[in-house]
Amino acid sequence: MQTAPVILIADPEPRTLEMIFEPDVLSRLGSLGRLVIHADGNRLSPDELDEALSEAVIVIGQIDLDADRLARMPKLRAIFNVEGNFLPNIDYPVCFDRGIHVLNISPVYATSVAETALAMALDLARGVTATHEAFRDASEAWGLASNAGCFLFTGSPIGIVGLGDLGRALRRMLRPFRCKVRVYDPWLPPRLIEAEGCEPATLDEVFTTSRVVFLFASSTSQNQGFIGERELSLMPEGAVLLVMSRAGIVDFRALERHLATGRIRAGIDVFPVEPLEAESPLRRMEGVILSSHRSGGMPESFLEIGRLVLADAELVLQGRPPQVCRRAERETVALMRSRPVARS
Amino acid sequence: MQTAPVILIADPEPRTLEMIFEPDVLSRLGSLGRLVIHADGNRLSPDELDEALSEAVIVIGQIDLDADRLARMPKLRAIFNVEGNFLPNIDYPVCFDRGIHVLNISPVYATSVAETALAMALDLARGVTATHEAFRDASEAWGLASNAGCFLFTGSPIGIVGLGDLGRALRRMLRPFRCKVRVYDPWLPPRLIEAEGCEPATLDEVFTTSRVVFLFASSTSQNQGFIGERELSLMPEGAVLLVMSRAGIVDFRALERHLATGRIRAGIDVFPVEPLEAESPLRRMEGVILSSHRSGGMPESFLEIGRLVLADAELVLQGRPPQVCRRAERETVALMRSRPVARS
Amino acid sequence: MQTAPVILIADPEPRTLEMIFEPDVLSRLGSLGRLVIHADGNRLSPDELDEALSEAVIVIGQIDLDADRLARMPKLRAIFNVEGNFLPNIDYPVCFDRGIHVLNISPVYATSVAETALAMALDLARGVTATHEAFRDASEAWGLASNAGCFLFTGSPIGIVGLGDLGRALRRMLRPFRCKVRVYDPWLPPRLIEAEGCEPATLDEVFTTSRVVFLFASSTSQNQGFIGERELSLMPEGAVLLVMSRAGIVDFRALERHLATGRIRAGIDVFPVEPLEAESPLRRMEGVILSSHRSGGMPESFLEIGRLVLADAELVLQGRPPQVCRRAERETVALMRSRPVARS
Amino acid sequence: MQTAPVILIADPEPRTLEMIFEPDVLSRLGSLGRLVIHADGNRLSPDELDEALSEAVIVIGQIDLDADRLARMPKLRAIFNVEGNFLPNIDYPVCFDRGIHVLNISPVYATSVAETALAMALDLARGVTATHEAFRDASEAWGLASNAGCFLFTGSPIGIVGLGDLGRALRRMLRPFRCKVRVYDPWLPPRLIEAEGCEPATLDEVFTTSRVVFLFASSTSQNQGFIGERELSLMPEGAVLLVMSRAGIVDFRALERHLATGRIRAGIDVFPVEPLEAESPLRRMEGVILSSHRSGGMPESFLEIGRLVLADAELVLQGRPPQVCRRAERETVALMRSRPVARS
Repeated sequence: MQTAPVILIADPEPRTLEMIFEPDVLSRLGSLGRLVIHADGNRLSPDELDEALSEAVIVIGQIDLDADRLARMPKLRAIFNVEGNFLPNIDYPVCFDRGIHVLNISPVYATSVAETALAMALDLARGVTATHEAFRDASEAWGLASNAGCFLFTGSPIGIVGLGDLGRALRRMLRPFRCKVRVYDPWLPPRLIEAEGCEPATLDEVFTTSRVVFLFASSTSQNQGFIGERELSLMPEGAVLLVMSRAGIVDFRALERHLATGRIRAGIDVFPVEPLEAESPLRRMEGVILSSHRSGGMPESFLEIGRLVLADAELVLQGRPPQVCRRAERETVALMRSRPVARS
Repeated sequence: MQTAPVILIADPEPRTLEMIFEPDVLSRLGSLGRLVIHADGNRLSPDELDEALSEAVIVIGQIDLDADRLARMPKLRAIFNVEGNFLPNIDYPVCFDRGIHVLNISPVYATSVAETALAMALDLARGVTATHEAFRDASEAWGLASNAGCFLFTGSPIGIVGLGDLGRALRRMLRPFRCKVRVYDPWLPPRLIEAEGCEPATLDEVFTTSRVVFLFASSTSQNQGFIGERELSLMPEGAVLLVMSRAGIVDFRALERHLATGRIRAGIDVFPVEPLEAESPLRRMEGVILSSHRSGGMPESFLEIGRLVLADAELVLQGRPPQVCRRAERETVALMRSRPVARS
Repeated sequence: MQTAPVILIADPEPRTLEMIFEPDVLSRLGSLGRLVIHADGNRLSPDELDEALSEAVIVIGQIDLDADRLARMPKLRAIFNVEGNFLPNIDYPVCFDRGIHVLNISPVYATSVAETALAMALDLARGVTATHEAFRDASEAWGLASNAGCFLFTGSPIGIVGLGDLGRALRRMLRPFRCKVRVYDPWLPPRLIEAEGCEPATLDEVFTTSRVVFLFASSTSQNQGFIGERELSLMPEGAVLLVMSRAGIVDFRALERHLATGRIRAGIDVFPVEPLEAESPLRRMEGVILSSHRSGGMPESFLEIGRLVLADAELVLQGRPPQVCRRAERETVALMRSRPVARS
Repeated sequence: MQTAPVILIADPEPRTLEMIFEPDVLSRLGSLGRLVIHADGNRLSPDELDEALSEAVIVIGQIDLDADRLARMPKLRAIFNVEGNFLPNIDYPVCFDRGIHVLNISPVYATSVAETALAMALDLARGVTATHEAFRDASEAWGLASNAGCFLFTGSPIGIVGLGDLGRALRRMLRPFRCKVRVYDPWLPPRLIEAEGCEPATLDEVFTTSRVVFLFASSTSQNQGFIGERELSLMPEGAVLLVMSRAGIVDFRALERHLATGRIRAGIDVFPVEPLEAESPLRRMEGVILSSHRSGGMPESFLEIGRLVLADAELVLQGRPPQVCRRAERETVALMRSRPVARS
């Protein structure tokens, strides 16, 4: 007789089950096998956990899975990280050798981040927040002067650094604005960039020709601070930079210098130190919109996590490859897992 | 011998020629006939003006054209208002009887207004300006609390009141957000609303079911203040209203009451009295973004005016109907020309 | 007391009421006023007809409306031709002077004609019918030879002559094929052609550069046979011509000569004499697909007629301008009404 | 000193190098490393081949790669099948264990196949070929009768069986026709089907509700003849079936019976035995369009092969994962490689 496959939810923190699983999603997940939960408020004993691990076909959560532990998990087929990164607490080579899928749910943040990025870009192009702030002390301009320094977003040349899930979600939102979109992404072949309706470009071309540049690149061990003094100097007067993905890829000191001059504008969602220091000069600058690392963390995004996990868990248990979560890849996971902290 | 047709630019104010005609556009307009200019800085004498009028095939500007004057303009074929409204200084019935096209260039504002409307809607949905204002005094929230009260714009039910040029431009910008869009527009047959990918709805349905409502209706002699206490009360908690077209269609006292409670949010670009009074309570409210009647008046929009005029002037002089400017219609111009002041 | 407005259906032939009005559409039309029908099988007496005319606010059908008759129709506001052309049996100047809308329903044919045009173009590009005919006598090729002389439609340069309803419907169907589309249409300003995602071009450019050319131009008193020897000679070897709108615009003798050589291919839906003569050499040629003037006349198209009429009749009776039917224009109706016979 | 990586083209047949590599593509491929060619007309000696294999980082072609041979290829990182299937001449488990990518270029056929599928579907919906055949003996109908039995493709309910590269390419081409599209694909989670703008459905729902059904499913060891008597019986009168992917998935005897009655229509590109027997009754049937397994094999498609290989070879040599070719997957390759013969 066939026993039901064990689906183990283990250490989903910082997510709670309620955040990521709607009741019907959890119920359908439960119907796929025997669901075992090891999470805050419902901790298993060490023996219970060991037994669950030894039987688990699917693990959902950020539990440590080193080589020793994996060796005692003969049935394991897939591991779902529900936080959004490939963390260094898994022995990836073992997983690759055994054909265990290591998956994360980072695609769920794409819509929410892209929406905020577009909101800030439109705002900076058209002076929405700046005008509103002037209304607070009745210093706003009327008539032609009210649009001084603004530009129409529609038709403006756009640059995107990093055309992964986030960049593609934004690119779709840009379609109605009929912008020329240049993309710098060294991980993608030009034909894939073109297939998204963009023009492959060098980093310098992106910064030199774009009126608005969106930063969506992942932070890796190789690209710390690669948006720096040189790149910012290439931006035309009045151009707008959106710092959306990882603070680590930007040289923030250079960015602050450039913003202080008023030559360029920026919307910033991530910072080298979070929360941002109370005395940071960014807080008083004009031409800057600040956001507290909040672009992805919408309740709607978190509930997508459970749906993605359910969809791929179902495929995996049917003996089919997962289709919707992001897979760890031998070539890149070593780079990626060095990413500092989790977007929440 | 065929004489060149007279193209008379007369009283283009508040536009200047530089604002609306790029040099090559003016030059191409001039190549279509004999260009005569009567504008600030270049006024004709009364006799010169009379003679130009008597020969004019095309008039561009807001010069008074009453029945008497029109009677002395036998060659007239088209009148272009370059300000954006059908003003009451033209004898429309005479024009209709004689087949003189009366045209305005209001379509040029559509992209610019829609872009701002979307910017403010995204901002209010996602709390962009509110968070930024909190950064000013270091009171911003981080983590899950930072998105309290926000909602994802993508997928939210949207309402549009008035599906003319402005509403359609916005509707196109909404496509990537996969929203259900309900439209109230009593001037359009349902099949045209459906052809734009929207669902025809009553005014009450729009206000009851939408998380974001955009107001783009024209102000007519029949619809003053038709968005009032009743309609605002129908909006769900946390819903967002964008007041984009004409202040006259909204009961602002009712709106202020509703905004004061914090139950709904609003982006407002037009006001019953402009500039807004310095002591207006709107200036201190939360959940409100204020804009100084500036959504349409971008330099890019003004330069479109000249291009539209050129395109249709060329057709008219070839004996063909105009295609890109908005035509005055017998049925509606009497209503429309009662609109108070010009968007600039 | 207000009497119900008279809606007179008079001489709808060659349409029958059943063809163009679904029961619920006719019923809703009837609810707008007092419906009077003068049609085959239900003829009014001359007196009855006179009385109905004298009261009619709306006329639907092809009844003669000369100046005398119009003079006895004081309430008339709109005339709907339900056959598809502006026929010369109406005194158009009188209608224009009085602001009576003369409307036709030609937009209903656009989808059906465009669909057939695309079907024939794809067929000729890919050799579908030709291969199928070879199967009939087991002479079909297999392997690489099976695609000799064929080309991928996707990405091929396309030309469109006439960007009215038909051309625009086709253009929308071309979007997924990512073709460059050049358009020759002297009635449209370049910016409108560009707004449809096409490049304005001269007739020669269209014929020289396109691998597939679609003919959708109206037949007017000025453009008989304007696609002739010269234009056909410009087409590259293996190019495809779709003759969709009016035979009158094509010099058929020249076309037959070019097709006989096999240098170009064609799909032909309209002919100078219909039905096509049994002995026409076109019937035996290769590289030709013949269609019996049937691209527009689908039952689904005819039922759209009633829906268009209902939509605009409702607006007209509310005192609003019609929105979905095509309006006769002073400038063009004199040209257009010379069109020979009706598409059915 | 770093030696250039060896890129070995070995047994590309049935492709020739000229078919798949444009000169500049081959030249760019050559610039990535040391190109060694073992192909018809340029055979290496056994020793030369052994040496090339022992050094190869990339293999392009269908050369046998069993466990023994792979054991002697320590540098191997990627194998490109340029024919279009995952053939059983590779030891896949060894490749998976070692992280060697096994790739094929099947995506190149998608556009060409989808285009033909659409051409045949439009043709059968609108009676294009049938009418043309009637013209051959002057038996064609004119007027309303000419469209008897036809239906408008636009708006018709569509079914797709298999939403891989082919199905998705077709789905994009369907967009302008505003059809409801139901998809049966047991390998995909419902959310991915919905993301393509389709409705997930059971096989029975697809056959019961669709006016046109497209078959794009792969042939596996598990689904032979799964479109049979039962499914065909569910199709509504006059419905259209497109047999595009693999003959093996269809019970052709049942299909012939159903076509013989005239109750349904079909476009068929693949057959159980190819070439189709000269005496096959399919050759004389009405309501059938026959195509000689030619939908994918366009020269344009073959030239895409080289471009795909180049794009992914470049990434692999940079130490990045391939992005554009199809990867063999542990779960499915055992099923897929049982597919009978290659599409060419």
